[in-house]
Amino acid sequence: METSPRAHVDSPDPASLPHVVVVGGGFAGVSAVRALAHQAVRVTLIDRHNFHTFLPLLYQVATAGLEPADVAYPIRTIFGHAKNVRVRHARVSDVERERNVVVLEDGTEISYDHLVVATGAVAAYFDIPGAKNYSMPLYTLANARRLRNRLLRSLEDAEVAAETVPKELNFVVVGGGPTGVETAGALSELIEIVIRRDGMKLDPVNVRIRLVDVASRLLTAFPDRASSYAREELESMGVDVELGRSVVEVEPHAIRFSDGERLEAGAVVWAGGVTAVGTIADQLEETSGPNGRALVNGDLRLRDSDNVWCVGDAAAIPQRGDPSKFYPQLAPVAIQSGLHCSKQILRLLEGEATEPFHYRDKGIMATIGRHAAVAKIPHVGVIRGTVGWMAWLGLHLWYLVGFRNRLRVFINWTWRYFDWPSGPRLIVADAETAK
Amino acid sequence: METSPRAHVDSPDPASLPHVVVVGGGFAGVSAVRALAHQAVRVTLIDRHNFHTFLPLLYQVATAGLEPADVAYPIRTIFGHAKNVRVRHARVSDVERERNVVVLEDGTEISYDHLVVATGAVAAYFDIPGAKNYSMPLYTLANARRLRNRLLRSLEDAEVAAETVPKELNFVVVGGGPTGVETAGALSELIEIVIRRDGMKLDPVNVRIRLVDVASRLLTAFPDRASSYAREELESMGVDVELGRSVVEVEPHAIRFSDGERLEAGAVVWAGGVTAVGTIADQLEETSGPNGRALVNGDLRLRDSDNVWCVGDAAAIPQRGDPSKFYPQLAPVAIQSGLHCSKQILRLLEGEATEPFHYRDKGIMATIGRHAAVAKIPHVGVIRGTVGWMAWLGLHLWYLVGFRNRLRVFINWTWRYFDWPSGPRLIVADAETAK
Repeated sequence: METSPRAHVDSPDPASLPHVVVVGGGFAGVSAVRALAHQAVRVTLIDRHNFHTFLPLLYQVATAGLEPADVAYPIRTIFGHAKNVRVRHARVSDVERERNVVVLEDGTEISYDHLVVATGAVAAYFDIPGAKNYSMPLYTLANARRLRNRLLRSLEDAEVAAETVPKELNFVVVGGGPTGVETAGALSELIEIVIRRDGMKLDPVNVRIRLVDVASRLLTAFPDRASSYAREELESMGVDVELGRSVVEVEPHAIRFSDGERLEAGAVVWAGGVTAVGTIADQLEETSGPNGRALVNGDLRLRDSDNVWCVGDAAAIPQRGDPSKFYPQLAPVAIQSGLHCSKQILRLLEGEATEPFHYRDKGIMATIGRHAAVAKIPHVGVIRGTVGWMAWLGLHLWYLVGFRNRLRVFINWTWRYFDWPSGPRLIVADAETAK
Repeated sequence: METSPRAHVDSPDPASLPHVVVVGGGFAGVSAVRALAHQAVRVTLIDRHNFHTFLPLLYQVATAGLEPADVAYPIRTIFGHAKNVRVRHARVSDVERERNVVVLEDGTEISYDHLVVATGAVAAYFDIPGAKNYSMPLYTLANARRLRNRLLRSLEDAEVAAETVPKELNFVVVGGGPTGVETAGALSELIEIVIRRDGMKLDPVNVRIRLVDVASRLLTAFPDRASSYAREELESMGVDVELGRSVVEVEPHAIRFSDGERLEAGAVVWAGGVTAVGTIADQLEETSGPNGRALVNGDLRLRDSDNVWCVGDAAAIPQRGDPSKFYPQLAPVAIQSGLHCSKQILRLLEGEATEPFHYRDKGIMATIGRHAAVAKIPHVGVIRGTVGWMAWLGLHLWYLVGFRNRLRVFINWTWRYFDWPSGPRLIVADAETAK
């Protein structure tokens, strides 16, 4: 039994309790709602999908290592036990702050006492011509599936060409951060496995993976030696790491660099960064923060609001100690900010003052292949190799999964992960268009 | 080491060996190619998908019990070890029998010495108005995913309606054969699980499943008592079994019966039978067999051909002993006919005469819920209940999976099957259309 001073309610009277509306069912939104479940509030969680997506493993879906269902989880199931939580599968078209109302695309209005905006981010293309239309980002399940279909279809086409006029097939990954590094590594393994195990006639030498970044090293959020390690590992896996190169244009099946090179590419993966521009968060403030994120106070409320909060990737959260800087857009920040926000809402409803958010750094990690990773962990430093990989696995498959049936999900993923060589390399787009 | 009189070749000289082209990578086609792997022939397997689909479990994908990847397997991986087998991911647009050439949709011509047509069947709508456009068949992975999205989306809509004006939601399954019975049973379990476990406000009483057939009993291929058992089980699960009813029209969100009733329906599942009309098999013969199937001789060659064969659901195969009857369109018939066909091709190439096909009856089964099934097994009779269910599981998950890594697939499926309540009820169409 909890001894919390707050009432623990299972069947609140809908009309009598304050209504908290949370928009977005990602790490931040789910974390916020979990903290409000069974409390003396009514909660409505709105998401355009009926599932929560485990973003850090999307690159695995894109490279056919995991299935969509392995990294997605029905939102209703997460909160099925919480009678004060209502899930709404819908898109939000507008927020009318004067009236305290959220408007759905079908015109339905939902009024709130407190609104939590947790709408995440989208890929940032920096106005590079063609990037938005022809490169492939990795920020939603749909992105991952589309990229997977493209990769597999390109290999099928190259296999047919190999019988007559073999030519080079390039996959270009733009962005040397964790997403780019992880995608390039997994892609290298996918290609090696597919060609060898499926007995393709395609010569692996003709399939090249290029990881490109304008910076002078990979993983700039990590120390130098982690960057060098990642580069060496990737190169040993056959990935061409091309640093100090910038992209000036993306064409339907090619990419152009600032040094004039034009390269034909089976796919251009866009891992160049994210922005909140174009999301609900972007519309909330006239003076928005970096990357279109909504500027919030230390307690995570919008600077000019009493009851509108913003958390996760959508929020520009000032760092405690140095408010001129903002916390990075990371899953642990999203989870912790969602939780903090809900605690402050409950404090306000109890008549207490809010407290400022402070991020407890859990470290950052990037996996390079199936058996190598680097991690930077506070008070520990940089770990790498197989130990880094185990740390990566532990963090991703355990800490970040905040559901009741954590163990089941853990076993499921682990099995699928190691079962990978026989895995599901299906070109599903074909199935969809088939009669 | 095998002591077969035939040469066992791993690296045949492409030009010197006879070329067998197999169109279709279902049970029949895969079975045919397996018998030709490592033999003194070149083989090209053509399929419009890059994966083999395990059709008997499609209803599980449709009802969110299994993921697409659980019932599909990359065709290249099945034959990756066989150097004399080439897999081509393409659609066939035409067969020019005078020239012994198969024409692909992109115009590529592939010449053959022997052609095996294993193109399967499609849903039969019996010219019922609207059935083809508005009902949902279950014969491809794409069909299953579309049906799943529709079912889940209907439940989401009903959940929203439940807050204001609750109304009845009907799911209609047309066809009382194994597919219809299995789908109705699985659907009942899906709804029960979703509503209870996800804490939906929707009243289960308002969600009705109707299984409709014009016949006077379910599962007409089984004895009477199996039919009665299936009906009792389904009714105990809340399914309305409506026999002797015929459908006269399907509308976008409704169905009309011959007795005049018009029923609004969240989805109409079409399990009313299959036909080969409109497939390559249908075009092969001027005098085609029942359901558009190609008439073959006892050795599985087309009646007027020396080197064109037809197997599986696409073929009208005369029953040994009573050539006026044809073997039913079942997975075991497909598997056995594919194998037999390849053996006869090898015999011909050795200068031997062909032998007629004889189907060894392995029995037929239908699962009703997760713990009940009926099976009719030769020399055993009808078994039902949990024993029937175990038999069903064994047959489906073991016997029909003819791949090298049968054990891995078996474990994978079993795990997913029992892990079902937490399973992947994702409305994936949303992900696809999402930005």
